[in-house]
Amino acid sequence: LARREDLIHKRIAAIVSGGSPRDGEVFIGDDAAILLPPVAPLVMSTDVCVEGVHLDLTLFTVHDLGYKAVMSAASDIAAMGADLTYIVVAVSAPPGADLEALHEGIALAAREAGGLVVGGDVSTGPVIQVAVTVVGSAPAGGALRRNAARVGDYLVVTGPLGAAAAGLRLRRDGASASDPSCRAQAHPQARLRQGAAAVRAGARAGMDLSDGLGIDLHRLADASGVGFEIADVPVASGATDAEAWSGGEDYELLLAVSDLAALRNEFHLAGCDEPLVIGRVAPAGVRELRGRTVDVEGWLHQF
Amino acid sequence: LARREDLIHKRIAAIVSGGSPRDGEVFIGDDAAILLPPVAPLVMSTDVCVEGVHLDLTLFTVHDLGYKAVMSAASDIAAMGADLTYIVVAVSAPPGADLEALHEGIALAAREAGGLVVGGDVSTGPVIQVAVTVVGSAPAGGALRRNAARVGDYLVVTGPLGAAAAGLRLRRDGASASDPSCRAQAHPQARLRQGAAAVRAGARAGMDLSDGLGIDLHRLADASGVGFEIADVPVASGATDAEAWSGGEDYELLLAVSDLAALRNEFHLAGCDEPLVIGRVAPAGVRELRGRTVDVEGWLHQF
Repeated sequence: LARREDLIHKRIAAIVSGGSPRDGEVFIGDDAAILLPPVAPLVMSTDVCVEGVHLDLTLFTVHDLGYKAVMSAASDIAAMGADLTYIVVAVSAPPGADLEALHEGIALAAREAGGLVVGGDVSTGPVIQVAVTVVGSAPAGGALRRNAARVGDYLVVTGPLGAAAAGLRLRRDGASASDPSCRAQAHPQARLRQGAAAVRAGARAGMDLSDGLGIDLHRLADASGVGFEIADVPVASGATDAEAWSGGEDYELLLAVSDLAALRNEFHLAGCDEPLVIGRVAPAGVRELRGRTVDVEGWLHQF
Repeated sequence: LARREDLIHKRIAAIVSGGSPRDGEVFIGDDAAILLPPVAPLVMSTDVCVEGVHLDLTLFTVHDLGYKAVMSAASDIAAMGADLTYIVVAVSAPPGADLEALHEGIALAAREAGGLVVGGDVSTGPVIQVAVTVVGSAPAGGALRRNAARVGDYLVVTGPLGAAAAGLRLRRDGASASDPSCRAQAHPQARLRQGAAAVRAGARAGMDLSDGLGIDLHRLADASGVGFEIADVPVASGATDAEAWSGGEDYELLLAVSDLAALRNEFHLAGCDEPLVIGRVAPAGVRELRGRTVDVEGWLHQF
């Protein structure tokens, strides 16, 4: 029987499947996965990664695209301080696309982020797109929320910023794909350990920096009904100040915390780099970078 | 602040949001939704719908595409005999696409199928694509499985076949979009009530007919290690025999049941049309339509 599509599904399933279903569970192979009900609240998010929009395939690989799609979705789970559990992946791609390399990238990121790929779909389409839905388990201390920043909280990021944007620039200028900045563009890391450590440290407010500090600070402030005073933006090695402020795609977490010592301690215990203080949460109406009022600056889709 | 993307997100959220989060739940608006843990096992599936591949937008509308994307994903929940609970939607579209009409179609199908849209993503991309992930609640009697058909079971479909394929043909030939067959192409229905009724009737084996009986019968037979003898294929009004056999996209359910009387009774109680017997499950090696051996015939993606 000539069922090329079913054979492709089987090859893909073999690439992405990992971990064993528990009794009563079904992962890939039926119309839907069956998963035992979790004890904690579910955390759920979906994210689409489009060739040419989220990753330039003249500069990076199809494997990178699969990896980045999963990690950027997993970053939304990190942003809630949650654990990643399940992943489903809907792919579309033109004839001839290397679906195996794409799914090897998907599988690698899933494994590194601690999630199991339990379902998927593959369709034809004009460019490669990977829509990833992630399900996680909310932390016992309560999920990090965008609306929970309080005036006086320290604003903290989990690492220096701008590496992803610098990586894209450097790669265009001929840098090797193995350059650390280029890796940051193609292989972003979901800060899952940092999110969980922040919750253990009593943090209530946070989000991930997908579109750049220059936009995402406003989103946090809007949701919480507060402002911000930023004193210092830590710039990643090789990046410019502008890339650190508005480059986006770094997937570091932005946290608002009252107890900085507890945060440092939990990060230390979790083996994470020290959190970096960038400023404080201010009353509504104050939105300042080094004393100057700032408007939104970052990466936005143009519809 | 000029944040066109955020404004679009807000307009879209207003269109798709329905139902009220329970205490402790968060739907749209944070990095991820927070959902109270269900009591029953989860059923989860993802499905992508691509402009020009799954629906021809020279013949049908953007609203139809959103509707069809959600219903074809919901059909995977129906195929498990489960109830639909949550939906997340990852959309990509070129500049100028009518994202509001698209999301109105998404919202309508979600409402009709009984699911809540709790999250989404919007990106730019070359054509309109809608990747829908659905989460449902497994039935108390156990989900319908592809691997549970037993020799001697009746093979049953939930309605006559071929309407969706006929609708595409008729629409190309100038038929009105309101023609019942054209509606079947643009507004397929997930057979959620039928799936649940089948489980109550003791059914264990089933799937949805997305690619056509001529393929999907082989998939059920492969998964269950059995064969089939088909005596009769019920043809939808306006459709040809070939469209009924291999047209695909009807989203009727294919069930294998031992107790036909119980199935008819539960369908009757649920207010569903009478299930239609098409044949019997046969020993492995027998794959016949009206006494003649059949190979796979239906719609496949070409990679």
